[in-house]
Amino acid sequence: MPALLEATEELRPVARILDDALARVRQRLDEQLESDLPPVRSLCAHVERYRGKMLRPSVVVLSGLAADPRSPGGVRPEMVTEAHVTVGAVCELVHMATLVHDDVLDEAGTRRGGPTVNELRGNEAAVILGDYLIASAFHLCSGLESTSAARLIGSVSMTTCSGELLQLHHRDDFSLDEATYFEIVGRKTASLIGAAAELGARYAGGSEGVCTALGDAGRLLGVAFQIQDDVLDLTGVERIVGKSLGKDLEKGKLTLPLIHHLESLSPSGRGEALALLEEACQRGSGDAGRRAVAALETTGSIRYARRAAEDLIRRAKTLLATLPATPARRYLLWLADTVVSRTR
Amino acid sequence: MPALLEATEELRPVARILDDALARVRQRLDEQLESDLPPVRSLCAHVERYRGKMLRPSVVVLSGLAADPRSPGGVRPEMVTEAHVTVGAVCELVHMATLVHDDVLDEAGTRRGGPTVNELRGNEAAVILGDYLIASAFHLCSGLESTSAARLIGSVSMTTCSGELLQLHHRDDFSLDEATYFEIVGRKTASLIGAAAELGARYAGGSEGVCTALGDAGRLLGVAFQIQDDVLDLTGVERIVGKSLGKDLEKGKLTLPLIHHLESLSPSGRGEALALLEEACQRGSGDAGRRAVAALETTGSIRYARRAAEDLIRRAKTLLATLPATPARRYLLWLADTVVSRTR
Repeated sequence: MPALLEATEELRPVARILDDALARVRQRLDEQLESDLPPVRSLCAHVERYRGKMLRPSVVVLSGLAADPRSPGGVRPEMVTEAHVTVGAVCELVHMATLVHDDVLDEAGTRRGGPTVNELRGNEAAVILGDYLIASAFHLCSGLESTSAARLIGSVSMTTCSGELLQLHHRDDFSLDEATYFEIVGRKTASLIGAAAELGARYAGGSEGVCTALGDAGRLLGVAFQIQDDVLDLTGVERIVGKSLGKDLEKGKLTLPLIHHLESLSPSGRGEALALLEEACQRGSGDAGRRAVAALETTGSIRYARRAAEDLIRRAKTLLATLPATPARRYLLWLADTVVSRTR
Repeated sequence: MPALLEATEELRPVARILDDALARVRQRLDEQLESDLPPVRSLCAHVERYRGKMLRPSVVVLSGLAADPRSPGGVRPEMVTEAHVTVGAVCELVHMATLVHDDVLDEAGTRRGGPTVNELRGNEAAVILGDYLIASAFHLCSGLESTSAARLIGSVSMTTCSGELLQLHHRDDFSLDEATYFEIVGRKTASLIGAAAELGARYAGGSEGVCTALGDAGRLLGVAFQIQDDVLDLTGVERIVGKSLGKDLEKGKLTLPLIHHLESLSPSGRGEALALLEEACQRGSGDAGRRAVAALETTGSIRYARRAAEDLIRRAKTLLATLPATPARRYLLWLADTVVSRTR
């Protein structure tokens, strides 16, 4: 996530601990993905580039620091335990697996500014590699002392997939409502980020109240993160975001701005908008896509989605404000703001 | 696997216990795959039909019965513990996930005499459903008391995927040698069956020697099982086998009969055979495929592969013979024979 240099003076001590912790997570990932088979090694080397933001491991570590009962005495590197490093790597592996499979489903050619696995090595390699990453996540997770983290990660992975299946079920469904959109996003994106926050807090010995608050805040952050992703898919610049854009429209995925747009229109305007969207859903219809995005501005639907994300962030920050006032909490509050201000 | 009625008189008591145990495994699978989301429920209902042979849960249960120190006193239903039922369901879920993804990779339209998930609901639903099944397997497994089963299942799932990746790496590689073929098969098929046998024995409180013998026997059975699958892909009747056949050739997968065939020929004969195989690898070239299978008979390559499978079964039976002489051991010996005599 945000690099050391991006953090303000006040956040530097936490940023330094986070940077060191993320280096340990990367090391754990490298060890876990080591293989005696050259074709496996080369594929795993390719997805190393997917580790860009490391949002989920960051959430594990920061949540742990914020929940640690010793935290008010000041953050110290040793607060980041081996279990935190493992859980961070596990969450990142699950996330990487979904990215690899999502790119197959979305027929996406670009991620983090480079070719996707499916683009470079074919769909088959990408499907099996995703499976390998999921299996690696569970293998690593079951190396922890108790089964509770594995149980939560297993459950959350099921939830993530069920969200993806629900989304697929509603493909090309132009009457998708907000409630179902939030159900999909809550499952496919927010559940894993919530689990990352909750597990980070639990492995720091946080109280039940603190663990629950952080888990809930993580889920709210996760929904906001996905809304921002959906907005960027419509309005972002591919060179900056670093992945194929406009895929949601092309794949018939209705996201919050589009749902708001369709609901804001008169019956006749809705008919026209649907015709344009159907055109935009045809592969390679760049122009219809651009016109659809322009139409969203007329109903203020991009602004509406941005405000919905900001509102979720506000709610997450209210929950975070119930934690003891520590440098780690301040960092989390700052991180929450970057979720909606980011351009990639 | 073999139904109660197929078992000989002597094997009936074990067959009855196995049938009851498999009913409990089915029940556990149903519970684990319950979902509040209709699209998830309907997909899971579709893969229920994939549970045909239930080989892996059968191996867990039989291995447990054979390893139980109380076994010489006679098999009893209560020897099949809740942990056996869970591990059996976990192994079946991992297997079902690989079937669903394999059918995507193989572009197969038929399995167990019905349409595959990808045929009926598209590749995307099949990819996510496979992920859902893997996640369900790990979630269920982490409900067990200790992490050791989850650790082994996680490791074996990585091994399975690495075998698939190795196989993909060697697609259209007409110089694939036997050693690499056995490496692929050992990973992608045998490792899970070996783990099923080993875990069955461990959860019965078997001695270290018994657990190792059963694990090794399971892996040998697994390799023989895959060779028989590969032979059936070339020689089977689709209506009997119940799945799309000839996919290995079409997908450029060299299996044992083909490897033997190519190695048996003179340089000029090899050139002709390669030309025929390349033709057979083109999609929809049914006739070239049939001619290739006929050519295999001239070098006795189908017979060679069958003998290799029989030899592995002999080795597995030698290991099983080191266990105490019990009805469960007799059943396992009989099951071993059915692996190579089966026509589906």
